[in-house]
Amino acid sequence: MVRWEPGAPDRLQQAALELFATRGYEETTAAEIAQAVGLTERTFFRHFKDKREVLFRGQDHLVKAALQGVNAAPEQATPMEVLTSALQAITSAFSDERRPWSRTRQQVIDRNPALQEREQHKLSILAATIAEAMAARGVAAPTATLAARSGIAAFEVAFLRWIADGEQRPLTVIIKDVLDELRALLR
Amino acid sequence: MVRWEPGAPDRLQQAALELFATRGYEETTAAEIAQAVGLTERTFFRHFKDKREVLFRGQDHLVKAALQGVNAAPEQATPMEVLTSALQAITSAFSDERRPWSRTRQQVIDRNPALQEREQHKLSILAATIAEAMAARGVAAPTATLAARSGIAAFEVAFLRWIADGEQRPLTVIIKDVLDELRALLR
Repeated sequence: MVRWEPGAPDRLQQAALELFATRGYEETTAAEIAQAVGLTERTFFRHFKDKREVLFRGQDHLVKAALQGVNAAPEQATPMEVLTSALQAITSAFSDERRPWSRTRQQVIDRNPALQEREQHKLSILAATIAEAMAARGVAAPTATLAARSGIAAFEVAFLRWIADGEQRPLTVIIKDVLDELRALLR
Repeated sequence: MVRWEPGAPDRLQQAALELFATRGYEETTAAEIAQAVGLTERTFFRHFKDKREVLFRGQDHLVKAALQGVNAAPEQATPMEVLTSALQAITSAFSDERRPWSRTRQQVIDRNPALQEREQHKLSILAATIAEAMAARGVAAPTATLAARSGIAAFEVAFLRWIADGEQRPLTVIIKDVLDELRALLR
């Protein structure tokens, strides 16, 4: 029988991030993460495929938010309006309470090329999801791909600003500025 | 004593791509790649760290091209002009003779998530390289990052069009169209 562990995924995730940040990602084992919160390695692997996935638990949520964002745009919306709706939905998923976690997570990723590859893959899946959903709404496929990929590039830039030291503005505000800057840049 | 193998890396690369495409990436070993062109596994590992790197041999060349492109822009160039110079340099590296290779390589990558992660990482390094080189020229860091990431997003879209069935235009022409479309999209 599987024992019910209240909040086990959250506790494992928090402990993992702390260990990754202080001791190093490579140096931390799943058993040590579990031990840090009084759980067994078996419990860890009931919740996560491997220790890397602890850092990518939010991916499905972001993909869902992106899809909802695309579909929330009015029927007659321009491709840019659809993209903006998707980006608003994605950035809304990053609450200000989450900022310290996101900041530490990024520091861990920045130190490990394999994690950087995984992170880029996540963003690429997010872009592909938006592109497909836009195309399903009738946006021409090349336009949808271009909009989605550029939109995710803007998201990456906005996200890096959001986690910068001293930055106070919410991500939903920063993304608007970044899109304005992109417009000005291309002019 | 190391025997000199004329053109060994090129021959290994070609054989690897053919095996990856016909038999599957996971199913192909370094020994089999070497054997296909009458070389030993040891020779394979003299040239490539592992079989994955066979598909990413051009990365250093692209990074160099990007840097040259950034530095080739006139001193008073706008950020957009610097980015365009970088993108022209990168896309010039993809000659029309290389198109069938690039097309097959992409098919192999599309079938393997680990290769997709590696490819996204390559593009992310390329974007970071351009951003740093632009910042070194005096472009404000946030603008440089935004320009580089959006530019690489445009490159990815242009590249996918370049390898599409029936596409005849050179990549250097397609990238200009994509940048124009991005401008129109954001308007």
